[in-house]
Amino acid sequence: MKIIEDGRAPNPRRVRIFLAEKGIEVAFEQIDIMKREHLTPDFAALNPFQRTPVLVLDDGTAIAESIAICRYFEEIEPTPPLFGTSARERAIIEMWNRRMELNLFFAVAQCFRHLHPAMAELEVPQVPAWGEANRDHAIKALEILDRQLANNPYVAGEGYSVADITALVAIDFMKPARIEMPARLAHVARWHSEVAARPSAKA
Amino acid sequence: MKIIEDGRAPNPRRVRIFLAEKGIEVAFEQIDIMKREHLTPDFAALNPFQRTPVLVLDDGTAIAESIAICRYFEEIEPTPPLFGTSARERAIIEMWNRRMELNLFFAVAQCFRHLHPAMAELEVPQVPAWGEANRDHAIKALEILDRQLANNPYVAGEGYSVADITALVAIDFMKPARIEMPARLAHVARWHSEVAARPSAKA
Repeated sequence: MKIIEDGRAPNPRRVRIFLAEKGIEVAFEQIDIMKREHLTPDFAALNPFQRTPVLVLDDGTAIAESIAICRYFEEIEPTPPLFGTSARERAIIEMWNRRMELNLFFAVAQCFRHLHPAMAELEVPQVPAWGEANRDHAIKALEILDRQLANNPYVAGEGYSVADITALVAIDFMKPARIEMPARLAHVARWHSEVAARPSAKA
Repeated sequence: MKIIEDGRAPNPRRVRIFLAEKGIEVAFEQIDIMKREHLTPDFAALNPFQRTPVLVLDDGTAIAESIAICRYFEEIEPTPPLFGTSARERAIIEMWNRRMELNLFFAVAQCFRHLHPAMAELEVPQVPAWGEANRDHAIKALEILDRQLANNPYVAGEGYSVADITALVAIDFMKPARIEMPARLAHVARWHSEVAARPSAKA
């Protein structure tokens, strides 16, 4: 079993933090997106959508999509649970993970992909107006997150979950995306200092 | 328990097809997005991101995000399984559901939201160049889906799953989004005629 990734990108970091929280060790193989190593026929055979990370199982099965990889490890090593245990808890964690992905992580990534000069060859066409619009989308999502964290220690409620991993990685990706964190979001700041201090955040 | 939705939108349809496949009946309550009924304070209290559908449990818990709602029902009624059973199968279905969501459904929705005059007041700002770029993204995802369906009866492999529901709803949403299905995608056409003929597709 191995994970193929470009270790500098945010999605691979989600998987590494998840594995660190589980205490699972997996072999990693690096490819360089900037050198277009994800655009080779060999890599396209593993993942036709040509994104990292990809988990390659011992039988050769390739699992792409960060959250699909995380779910695989949740199934084979359920402790500590990072997707919840009861039906209600699993639904709430899935909801908050998706909110953080679709409204925050995605918005930050669009800002980076459509405004950063380094992405001009990988995001075709770059649409700067769409990048700009997503700066506002990201801030709006952070304001909702701040209200959630005013009443809850973690993103999905009482316990640390995959939703915290997605939100942490999204927020740390704001720096290369050149989005400034509004100073008024005190609850996000409290939560961020806590989750960023966990050993897994260095993974 | 009830589901609040605008029944004309594609995401609520995903949940209705899922429930029909499970044979689960739930009470529905309609709101009208075009009349901005999802922008009221009451609805924002249920879902601060102001999207439908929302599942309201008997204890008042509100579950937003279509796939979070589907997962809740998968947990309380596991048969037939629509998210897979083994770790490997669950990972593969999650992967294909996400591929269909992030690369196909999302691209079709961006076309609709950024190019359709009816969305001018709901998608602010509309960025037509981004809508146009997503027409190509959608076709590219359909080409990859066609290759997958050349070797597999269903989107995620041997069995019907939530990934088929997402792909069906995305493809049917191409009509209002004004994206034409390329006639060369014979495997997609074969699969579509099969899944669209299931009684659940009318839900």
